[in-house]
Amino acid sequence: MMEEILEQVQRGSLSVAEAKEKLATYENLGFAKVDHHRKNRQGFPEVIYGEGKTDVQILSIIKAIRSKGNDVLVTRISKDKADYILQEYPEFIYNETAQILFWKEQKNSKDSFQGYIAIVCAGTSDLRVAEEAAVTAQALGSEVRRFYDVGVAGIHRLLDNIEEIQQATVSVVVAGMEGALPSVVGGLVSHPIIAVPTSVGYGANFNGLSALLTMLNSCASGISVVNIDNGFGAAYNAVLIDNLAKKGAEKG
Amino acid sequence: MMEEILEQVQRGSLSVAEAKEKLATYENLGFAKVDHHRKNRQGFPEVIYGEGKTDVQILSIIKAIRSKGNDVLVTRISKDKADYILQEYPEFIYNETAQILFWKEQKNSKDSFQGYIAIVCAGTSDLRVAEEAAVTAQALGSEVRRFYDVGVAGIHRLLDNIEEIQQATVSVVVAGMEGALPSVVGGLVSHPIIAVPTSVGYGANFNGLSALLTMLNSCASGISVVNIDNGFGAAYNAVLIDNLAKKGAEKG
Amino acid sequence: MMEEILEQVQRGSLSVAEAKEKLATYENLGFAKVDHHRKNRQGFPEVIYGEGKTDVQILSIIKAIRSKGNDVLVTRISKDKADYILQEYPEFIYNETAQILFWKEQKNSKDSFQGYIAIVCAGTSDLRVAEEAAVTAQALGSEVRRFYDVGVAGIHRLLDNIEEIQQATVSVVVAGMEGALPSVVGGLVSHPIIAVPTSVGYGANFNGLSALLTMLNSCASGISVVNIDNGFGAAYNAVLIDNLAKKGAEKG
Amino acid sequence: MMEEILEQVQRGSLSVAEAKEKLATYENLGFAKVDHHRKNRQGFPEVIYGEGKTDVQILSIIKAIRSKGNDVLVTRISKDKADYILQEYPEFIYNETAQILFWKEQKNSKDSFQGYIAIVCAGTSDLRVAEEAAVTAQALGSEVRRFYDVGVAGIHRLLDNIEEIQQATVSVVVAGMEGALPSVVGGLVSHPIIAVPTSVGYGANFNGLSALLTMLNSCASGISVVNIDNGFGAAYNAVLIDNLAKKGAEKG
Amino acid sequence: MMEEILEQVQRGSLSVAEAKEKLATYENLGFAKVDHHRKNRQGFPEVIYGEGKTDVQILSIIKAIRSKGNDVLVTRISKDKADYILQEYPEFIYNETAQILFWKEQKNSKDSFQGYIAIVCAGTSDLRVAEEAAVTAQALGSEVRRFYDVGVAGIHRLLDNIEEIQQATVSVVVAGMEGALPSVVGGLVSHPIIAVPTSVGYGANFNGLSALLTMLNSCASGISVVNIDNGFGAAYNAVLIDNLAKKGAEKG
Amino acid sequence: MMEEILEQVQRGSLSVAEAKEKLATYENLGFAKVDHHRKNRQGFPEVIYGEGKTDVQILSIIKAIRSKGNDVLVTRISKDKADYILQEYPEFIYNETAQILFWKEQKNSKDSFQGYIAIVCAGTSDLRVAEEAAVTAQALGSEVRRFYDVGVAGIHRLLDNIEEIQQATVSVVVAGMEGALPSVVGGLVSHPIIAVPTSVGYGANFNGLSALLTMLNSCASGISVVNIDNGFGAAYNAVLIDNLAKKGAEKG
Amino acid sequence: MMEEILEQVQRGSLSVAEAKEKLATYENLGFAKVDHHRKNRQGFPEVIYGEGKTDVQILSIIKAIRSKGNDVLVTRISKDKADYILQEYPEFIYNETAQILFWKEQKNSKDSFQGYIAIVCAGTSDLRVAEEAAVTAQALGSEVRRFYDVGVAGIHRLLDNIEEIQQATVSVVVAGMEGALPSVVGGLVSHPIIAVPTSVGYGANFNGLSALLTMLNSCASGISVVNIDNGFGAAYNAVLIDNLAKKGAEKG
Amino acid sequence: MMEEILEQVQRGSLSVAEAKEKLATYENLGFAKVDHHRKNRQGFPEVIYGEGKTDVQILSIIKAIRSKGNDVLVTRISKDKADYILQEYPEFIYNETAQILFWKEQKNSKDSFQGYIAIVCAGTSDLRVAEEAAVTAQALGSEVRRFYDVGVAGIHRLLDNIEEIQQATVSVVVAGMEGALPSVVGGLVSHPIIAVPTSVGYGANFNGLSALLTMLNSCASGISVVNIDNGFGAAYNAVLIDNLAKKGAEKG
Repeated sequence: MMEEILEQVQRGSLSVAEAKEKLATYENLGFAKVDHHRKNRQGFPEVIYGEGKTDVQILSIIKAIRSKGNDVLVTRISKDKADYILQEYPEFIYNETAQILFWKEQKNSKDSFQGYIAIVCAGTSDLRVAEEAAVTAQALGSEVRRFYDVGVAGIHRLLDNIEEIQQATVSVVVAGMEGALPSVVGGLVSHPIIAVPTSVGYGANFNGLSALLTMLNSCASGISVVNIDNGFGAAYNAVLIDNLAKKGAEKG
Repeated sequence: MMEEILEQVQRGSLSVAEAKEKLATYENLGFAKVDHHRKNRQGFPEVIYGEGKTDVQILSIIKAIRSKGNDVLVTRISKDKADYILQEYPEFIYNETAQILFWKEQKNSKDSFQGYIAIVCAGTSDLRVAEEAAVTAQALGSEVRRFYDVGVAGIHRLLDNIEEIQQATVSVVVAGMEGALPSVVGGLVSHPIIAVPTSVGYGANFNGLSALLTMLNSCASGISVVNIDNGFGAAYNAVLIDNLAKKGAEKG
Repeated sequence: MMEEILEQVQRGSLSVAEAKEKLATYENLGFAKVDHHRKNRQGFPEVIYGEGKTDVQILSIIKAIRSKGNDVLVTRISKDKADYILQEYPEFIYNETAQILFWKEQKNSKDSFQGYIAIVCAGTSDLRVAEEAAVTAQALGSEVRRFYDVGVAGIHRLLDNIEEIQQATVSVVVAGMEGALPSVVGGLVSHPIIAVPTSVGYGANFNGLSALLTMLNSCASGISVVNIDNGFGAAYNAVLIDNLAKKGAEKG
Repeated sequence: MMEEILEQVQRGSLSVAEAKEKLATYENLGFAKVDHHRKNRQGFPEVIYGEGKTDVQILSIIKAIRSKGNDVLVTRISKDKADYILQEYPEFIYNETAQILFWKEQKNSKDSFQGYIAIVCAGTSDLRVAEEAAVTAQALGSEVRRFYDVGVAGIHRLLDNIEEIQQATVSVVVAGMEGALPSVVGGLVSHPIIAVPTSVGYGANFNGLSALLTMLNSCASGISVVNIDNGFGAAYNAVLIDNLAKKGAEKG
Repeated sequence: MMEEILEQVQRGSLSVAEAKEKLATYENLGFAKVDHHRKNRQGFPEVIYGEGKTDVQILSIIKAIRSKGNDVLVTRISKDKADYILQEYPEFIYNETAQILFWKEQKNSKDSFQGYIAIVCAGTSDLRVAEEAAVTAQALGSEVRRFYDVGVAGIHRLLDNIEEIQQATVSVVVAGMEGALPSVVGGLVSHPIIAVPTSVGYGANFNGLSALLTMLNSCASGISVVNIDNGFGAAYNAVLIDNLAKKGAEKG
Repeated sequence: MMEEILEQVQRGSLSVAEAKEKLATYENLGFAKVDHHRKNRQGFPEVIYGEGKTDVQILSIIKAIRSKGNDVLVTRISKDKADYILQEYPEFIYNETAQILFWKEQKNSKDSFQGYIAIVCAGTSDLRVAEEAAVTAQALGSEVRRFYDVGVAGIHRLLDNIEEIQQATVSVVVAGMEGALPSVVGGLVSHPIIAVPTSVGYGANFNGLSALLTMLNSCASGISVVNIDNGFGAAYNAVLIDNLAKKGAEKG
Repeated sequence: MMEEILEQVQRGSLSVAEAKEKLATYENLGFAKVDHHRKNRQGFPEVIYGEGKTDVQILSIIKAIRSKGNDVLVTRISKDKADYILQEYPEFIYNETAQILFWKEQKNSKDSFQGYIAIVCAGTSDLRVAEEAAVTAQALGSEVRRFYDVGVAGIHRLLDNIEEIQQATVSVVVAGMEGALPSVVGGLVSHPIIAVPTSVGYGANFNGLSALLTMLNSCASGISVVNIDNGFGAAYNAVLIDNLAKKGAEKG
Repeated sequence: MMEEILEQVQRGSLSVAEAKEKLATYENLGFAKVDHHRKNRQGFPEVIYGEGKTDVQILSIIKAIRSKGNDVLVTRISKDKADYILQEYPEFIYNETAQILFWKEQKNSKDSFQGYIAIVCAGTSDLRVAEEAAVTAQALGSEVRRFYDVGVAGIHRLLDNIEEIQQATVSVVVAGMEGALPSVVGGLVSHPIIAVPTSVGYGANFNGLSALLTMLNSCASGISVVNIDNGFGAAYNAVLIDNLAKKGAEKG
């Protein structure tokens, strides 16, 4: 591309000023490529972290996003703030457990890909984080199946569901307290696992530190970990992986 | 008892000096009872913590114990030191993995009690601690069954053995790294579990802190925890519990 | 049992569909046994952790439990929520200090067993946790004796009660601040001790970490530890142990 | 499958004893499937963690693996021990920096898949961990490209290589000290990143804790983390992901 | 000076009492010099830490300062308290984001010095701390340029501004979460960097500990660190450095 | 004093130069007084911290001290180094357990004071620290009585000695592992207690942190704490207190 | 005494029942002595820790204490609760800064003792803790002098007061943030120092941990430390020491 | 510059290929500028971190540097390795305490600048780190004055030197144990202070954490902190600041 510009200058079909501007763009091409890559990801809606932003601030960001015709994903947004947005955009979907508000253009995609992400969750008290992961993954375009309340203290509940979990492309495994679930799942499946420690617990739980250390030290292979309570981050990772499988399948 | 002594004084059948001595004994009776209780425990050999003691020091303590005819249990004793002791007491038994040296008088007890302690162990690298627990429990007079290398990353190995574990009186569950095994066992058995975190691992394991926190935060009921690598302490607890069941049974 | 089913199929006395259903049950027998074990435990009421559940949610769980005729135990439930439940079930018992609501079918058991659990408590500020343990143990069917405000800074208060503590089957020892009480009790009794650190204290207490570490490092034998403030867990352990002694005694 | 067996019994074409054995197998099928999944993974060599095992122990495990015709991967094995193995198996490959010994059957696979894993490394002192990841990934069958010494303090070195990193299927990013590299890479690529903190550093580095926390708190999306110095675990994750992309591509 | 006083005493031109008082002053001269140095610094307004002081208390301190004709700088002061002060001193300037209230005498300084402090900030959520630094530096008399929202996850935003940052005398770099920004800036500039970790984040961020450790472990040279959220302290340091450059330039 | 000098100058009996020199001394009098106070303390030997110093270095410091006729106290000095010193100063006393070398001038003091410092020690493994305290206190001139191996797990051993401990002026209480001894002693005596945590223990002891936190959180009044293993510091404090009592008594 | 009782029994001047009761008392003499010691301390009022107690509870405890004619000291009591008590006992003194309520019988003691406790305080924000110490010491009967706002960042303020501090019997030194003040004071005085870290600060202060570690690691001798914010405990220690000096002086 | 190239292309005085190459260079100009800035710094020798490198590796790096005529600075290099280098380069200077080897071209600079860096050090055991700072600063071209053994426990030693410290451009203050020295110095000088915590100490010092926290929490303004033991980093910062003052002065 640089060569082309220079030849146009040589031929006189491009002024120095015009060439300079184009090359300035080119000059940033490394980063433009980055953006281009980002474009490819999208289909991904732009993500707004709702915590610490006012409803007015969130609304104005959403307007800017929608003006470009893009999808919207707001995480960690309370019902109050979501209601405020929904007055303007009643077509948006709000999931109160997940604390997520999103909107996604419907596409007539005949998606032949059969893959799905398994969202596996130890206890009912980890639901908020599990749902943040599940709804995020759906908003980012992946199929999701939920396997909730299958914690290690009642291992048969997990085993009753293990075949369906095994057939997922990737699992997001959410657990608080002792955080042992990813290790057990990791010994039963052959796909990648994104483990999410939650801050659920008390005493020597230290706001999720216990579960975090458990997951980092897992003796099962194929497990990587995200920050405490970071359901969004886990889903984001899972969707990247799910898309790799999808892309391969689509090429076929 | 005090009353009796005083009446003897009143009757003149006991001098003041004699009464004084007896009462002095009585005065310490609270603690004498303690010792009496300790006696009941025994059959328990006296326990020597070998780390940081020289072979000469250990030998002299053993001689004192043996001179009273008591059993001997030395924990955390290296092979070198044990060999030194074995020259004098070739009848002693040394278990190198457990780092335990002990001697126990054979009794013709027709013990009708069927109970046993299950020593359950996550990985081969936790063997030293598991064996410290197992040999301690045996030296203290309990029946022991070992279930080793049944960590959560291969849950079927545990499930293959679960019925025999379920029939134990009490389990000692030893695990390093993420320390999830007690939680899983706790969901499958109905007897008390003594959990032992080990310092096996690396990185964010922090010398056993990870496993310790996991066990303290277990979502399964019926689990209590001892210090990192404290196989001896876990076995001691387990034997106390096993003896309670045994005593009941013997009374029957 | 599997053999029997197959023979019935062979004989034609059982259809394939009927056999399949029975075997499906059988197939899960490993875990069914678990449940069976759990049944044996019961007599134990089912336990509901009240924190983070609404009164409506708790009520609906209770109804489900009562519909099966089972006993009820709700821990960490505030007076407000308990009052809501008591309107429907005025026969339930609420202990505000313990934050426990429970109901237990009266049985005409002529329980010849003399054992009891000692609940030993360092200071008045540890009362909530001690009562959680005491009431839990009672709700789970054990006899309980309370020894409160016998902290180590006034050792004679403990010694005044030590004989009665010594005769318990098992002790639950609750202490905050420096958490030294279990070590002292551990040197005076010969039965198992479940130690409960509490988050009572300030400054370098770090929400109970100080007491937790103290108890894990105890130089007395026969002590195991549960999570900070986990009075319920300690009682659950103690009852398991008490039942072992009881069972033996009953056999007799 | 169960139905089929029962019908055979009904028809008399299967004896009760034969049916019992088959059902016994079936009963464990959940776990058999697990193993089947594991088989699919393989091609993966079985992995031996060399630390804490003697050369004799390692050799005997290798012999067992080779007797089944399987590939071999030994991690954390010192040169001394590797030399001992190489006397018996001179065809094995030892990488001293990575501390890995492995052997892999050559296959005439015409692998049309173009994907590769990028191993990105902050500093020369993180080489051991980066090489553990790189050699593991190769031993597990993935293509690998190395981008070493591209730490954030000289950001242009990273930018000079960013396009080739962007085209990888997945990146393993290794960094010690402040551990900032994954965040920067995460902002420049659109594929999943497995971040590996290393224990390289001094002072307030606290044996890798600093880098670990940095990576868990990364503000870039698409990053998940493994334990400190766990190059093997990161590579294992990366290969699972790489295989998902490969599998899709192969199907095409 | 001491000599002079003594000679006056010798000559009789100074009484013993007068000499004693003068020498007492002299005796404290070391500290008087300290104060003198402090005077030199000023131009620096006196600084009031507003947190934990009532509006009435702050007002009375301000009055004392103003009565000496000095400038005023109040940090960590809420809008409510500031409004109270502004009623009395409407000429004061309040910056709500920075939580700073200040007043500075206008001087007709023809300041030929071209230097400025770059305030560089990773994310919008770090704004409060960045503004505390920026407004402090301005109130203390330095030129400031702001470079906000240039976090490492979008490195091109930083690179777009890097030349202007490079020409600053000194940079204050503010970052929360993983705190990687100072390392990247440190690799791109040749002047001193004062790094400020913020408590922005969640989970394993531990109230800013993560960012603090990152900055202390930075592999880039020329970085020193202040306490978490201490925007004021960073600015104070930066102004001291900026003044050194200014002083040199002014001498010229 | 200043007045006097000035009057001498006024009178001409002191030259300006002479006065200047005297006043220069006077000018530093605040600090001179400090030294004067230090003198009063002494009789205290000067203290050399032996760790990290060579035998040659220690010898040369000792020579300087002895040249002024002062007493000598070297702490944390190994036997090897002590032997080197003893060749030159055979009259010095070396205590190997305490790792202390000292020399003290004999005085014919008819010390009517009856007070003593109680050195109380939990376990035999804390001996090194207890002896460091005991020998330091003796070297600094106090009477010392040792009460060793009276840990809380065998409370009667402590109670057997409690009266003699109660009559001390001040107690130094040394304990590792759970560090509970000072709390128990604190409840039984009415004089000040200096508590010394030791690094003896393993697992969750964290090199003495456990004992340190226990002591800081003690529910008994009258306890203050020094650094882990700091037997010297505890003794120094105790001697200061003992001297206050002695001084009062001597005045009488 | 035991002998005497026995002789009376022998002589018949004491019945067995009477002797038994007397001996029961004697039997507890070890602890009675403890109480006796406690009596000696008193003059010390009994201390009530107000935090977590209701005004009604505090009042009832006070009534019990007053009914025995004893002095009263309530720490950590809010103004609301204090006002409630003051309605009943208007003669009590409440210090709001110190959060202390106390009452002390006036005695016509002609106390010839000149000693006092120096309460030294780094910053105005440490006032609450310093006043807790000061008022406690006064309520316990010691003379107190306050030296406030003499933190190390303005060392001349400390030096201006150092002589008066040097003449105290013992110092309580209170400091938050970096907690350096006790080290500096420790280098300037020759009496014991009780150091109190406070939780004042932010960021890497970690609720007083920073100041606590500073004080424990002080390179000055003669310093011991109490828990974070424990002004009461420091004063209690200081008064014990002050009384030792006083007692000596009184004997004289 | 880009414009110029384009005009040459337009004029035909530069071929497209030549222009492309030149622009490629230009394209990286942002980073080229960075390097240019780095050049300006230099005069700074290139820095080699010697720890973990062999003598052979260090020598080969040095040869590369010397071949470009540049100065050399090797930190953390042991005497053994330094001796190896000195055989080849006998003109190099090795400072064993500082563990630094360097070489610097002599310049006939008539440096009129009077500024110097004060290296202030609390105790003799911090010497290694202080010397690392001092020698680094000298090797980087700054004047240095050393003020050693002026710790806060003997504040008069510091005050005796304070005037000379006050006149420095910038101070590097090194302290271990409680790390209080920078706070005291910070209250006495008006220039920037770079504080260096050292790992000197024991017990609750936690390898320098204590001193690090102290310095971060300093109540004195004008202090920033580098990593534990990072004398090099502190000096590097100080030289950057010193050069700013120098540059100003030179311009004059």
